[in-house]
Amino acid sequence: MKIRPLHDRVVVRRKEEEQTTAGGIVLPGSAAEKPNQGEVVAVGTGRILDNGESRPVAVKEGDTVVFGKYSGSNTIEVDGEELLILNESEIYGVLES
Amino acid sequence: MKIRPLHDRVVVRRKEEEQTTAGGIVLPGSAAEKPNQGEVVAVGTGRILDNGESRPVAVKEGDTVVFGKYSGSNTIEVDGEELLILNESEIYGVLES
Amino acid sequence: MKIRPLHDRVVVRRKEEEQTTAGGIVLPGSAAEKPNQGEVVAVGTGRILDNGESRPVAVKEGDTVVFGKYSGSNTIEVDGEELLILNESEIYGVLES
Amino acid sequence: MKIRPLHDRVVVRRKEEEQTTAGGIVLPGSAAEKPNQGEVVAVGTGRILDNGESRPVAVKEGDTVVFGKYSGSNTIEVDGEELLILNESEIYGVLES
Amino acid sequence: MKIRPLHDRVVVRRKEEEQTTAGGIVLPGSAAEKPNQGEVVAVGTGRILDNGESRPVAVKEGDTVVFGKYSGSNTIEVDGEELLILNESEIYGVLES
Amino acid sequence: MKIRPLHDRVVVRRKEEEQTTAGGIVLPGSAAEKPNQGEVVAVGTGRILDNGESRPVAVKEGDTVVFGKYSGSNTIEVDGEELLILNESEIYGVLES
Amino acid sequence: MKIRPLHDRVVVRRKEEEQTTAGGIVLPGSAAEKPNQGEVVAVGTGRILDNGESRPVAVKEGDTVVFGKYSGSNTIEVDGEELLILNESEIYGVLES
Repeated sequence: MKIRPLHDRVVVRRKEEEQTTAGGIVLPGSAAEKPNQGEVVAVGTGRILDNGESRPVAVKEGDTVVFGKYSGSNTIEVDGEELLILNESEIYGVLES
Repeated sequence: MKIRPLHDRVVVRRKEEEQTTAGGIVLPGSAAEKPNQGEVVAVGTGRILDNGESRPVAVKEGDTVVFGKYSGSNTIEVDGEELLILNESEIYGVLES
Repeated sequence: MKIRPLHDRVVVRRKEEEQTTAGGIVLPGSAAEKPNQGEVVAVGTGRILDNGESRPVAVKEGDTVVFGKYSGSNTIEVDGEELLILNESEIYGVLES
Repeated sequence: MKIRPLHDRVVVRRKEEEQTTAGGIVLPGSAAEKPNQGEVVAVGTGRILDNGESRPVAVKEGDTVVFGKYSGSNTIEVDGEELLILNESEIYGVLES
Repeated sequence: MKIRPLHDRVVVRRKEEEQTTAGGIVLPGSAAEKPNQGEVVAVGTGRILDNGESRPVAVKEGDTVVFGKYSGSNTIEVDGEELLILNESEIYGVLES
Repeated sequence: MKIRPLHDRVVVRRKEEEQTTAGGIVLPGSAAEKPNQGEVVAVGTGRILDNGESRPVAVKEGDTVVFGKYSGSNTIEVDGEELLILNESEIYGVLES
Repeated sequence: MKIRPLHDRVVVRRKEEEQTTAGGIVLPGSAAEKPNQGEVVAVGTGRILDNGESRPVAVKEGDTVVFGKYSGSNTIEVDGEELLILNESEIYGVLES
C-alpha cells in the first residue's frame, strides 16, 4: 500500500538515531529525543497558489530533510510502518553530502 | 437521501477498525481509538479561488483517504448513518494499493 | 414582512425534530438537541470577491441544508418566527432525496 | 449637524421596542433587551477593495436593517441623539414589507 | 514644529468637552470622559495598496471627526500640545453642520 | 561599522531627553520615560509587495521620526551605541520645523 | 555534509562572543547572553510570491547578519556543529565595515 499526499504535503520516514554505548555497542532506536531528520517517501503535487495553479514542492523522493523540533506529530501508519506527514513549509532544508 | 457537499467539503465514511482477539475472533467496531481513514462518499465542486473560480478537490468518490487525528469531529447523519464532513485541507492523502 | 439577507448570508428555518414515544405518539419540537438542518428561506446576492464582484451562493430557496453544531446561534425574529442567519461558509451541504 | 460615515460604515438609529402591559398600555423604550433593528441614517461611500476602488454598501438611507446581538456597541451622539455606527459586514439583512 | 504623518495616519486635536454647572458656569476640560471627537490637524499620503499605490485618506485638515471610544490612546506631544495619532480606519465619520 | 537594514526596517537613534533641574542644571539622559522620537540612521530598500517589487520607505536618513510607546524594544549595538530597529509601519510620522 | 535551505530560510553560524577578564584574558564562548549576530552559511532560493515566483533573499553567504533576541531558537546540527535556521524576515540587517 502507498500513500499519495495531497498538495504541499510531504511523507517522511523519520531517521532512527543510533546510539553507541561506552563499550561500543550500537543501540538503534533508543534515542531519548527523536531526530528531526528523515527521508522523503512521497510528495504531493504542490501548494495551490491564489490563481489556482500548483507550485511543485522543493523536495523530492529520497531527499534527506531536516525539520523543526515541533514538527512531526502528524503520523499515519502504512503497512505497519509509522510515517510523518509534513507540510512543505515545515521543512527547513535538504542535507547534501 | 444523499448529501451534496458545498465547495471544498468532502463527505467521508469512517473506516471501522477490526480487532482480533487472541483467540482469533474478529471484533468489528470496538476499537479504542477511531481510525483516521475512510472512504470518500461525496465531494463538493471545489475551493473558491480569489478570482471567483472553483478549483476541483483532489480526491474523488471511492478514494480511501487519511486525515489528522484532530479532524473528523464534524458529523452529519444521513439515513441513520453517521458521516464525516471534512475540508479538503484536512485530508493528508489517498491510500493506494 | 420579509428579510433580504446581505451578500453571502443565508436565512434558514430550522427543522423541528419529531420525536415518537414508545407508544407511537409523535412529540414535535421537544428534541433535547436541536437538529442542524433547515430549509433555506432567503439567500443574499453572494460573497464579494477581492475584485469587487459578487459570487452567487451555492444554495437556493427551498433547499434543505445541513450546518455545523456550533452554527445557528445568530437568529432574528420575523413575523413572530425565529429564523437563523448563517454564512454560506457555515453550510456543509444540501440534502437531496 | 450630520455625520458622514467613512467607507463601509453605516449609521443606524436603533428601533425603540414598544411594550404593552397586560392592561394594554404601551410602554415605549422600556425593553429589557434592546432590539437589533434600526433605520439607516447615513451610509459611507463603500468598502475599499484591494485595487483601491470603493464598492457601494448594500443598504441605503431609510432601510430597516437587522444586525447581530453583539453589534451596536459603537455609538456616537449627534444633536443629543445616540446613533449606532456599524460596519456593513455587521448587518445581516434588510427587512422588507 | 509640525508633524507629517505617514501613510494612512491622521493627526487629530481632541475636542475639549465643555461642562456647565447647574448655575450656568462653564467648566472647560473637566469632563469625566474624554470626547471622541476632534479636529484633523494633518493627514498622511494614504494607505498603501497591494499594488504599491497610495489611496488618499477620506478626511482632510480641519474636518471634525468622530472615532471609537477605544481609539485615541496613541499620542504625541508637538510644541507642548498633546495630539492623537489615529489610523484612518479608526475614524467613524466626519461631522458636518 | 554600519548596519544596512533589510526591506522596510528603519534604524533609529533614540533622542536623549534633556532634563533641567529647578536650578537650571541640564541632566541629559536621566529621563524617567524614554522619548519616542529619534533620528533615522539608515533605511532598508522598502517593503516587498505581493508582486515582488519593493516600495521605498517613506522616511530618509536624518529625519526626526515619532513612534509608538510600545515600539522600540528591538535594539542592536553598533560600535558600542544602542540603536533601535523599527518597522516602517511602527513610525507615526516625521517632525518638521 | 551541507544543508540546502528551502525558500526564504537562511542558515546562520552564530557569532561566539569573546569576553575579556579584568586581567585581559579572553574567554571565548562564555557569554551570559548569546550574541544575536552571525555569519550566513547558506540561503534558500527565496520567498515564494503569490504568483508562484521566487524572490531572492536579501542576504548572501558570508554576510554578517543581526537578528532579534527572540529569534534563533530553531537549530540543526550539521557535522557536529550547531547552526541556526532563520527566516529572512527574522533578519534585521547586515553589518558592514
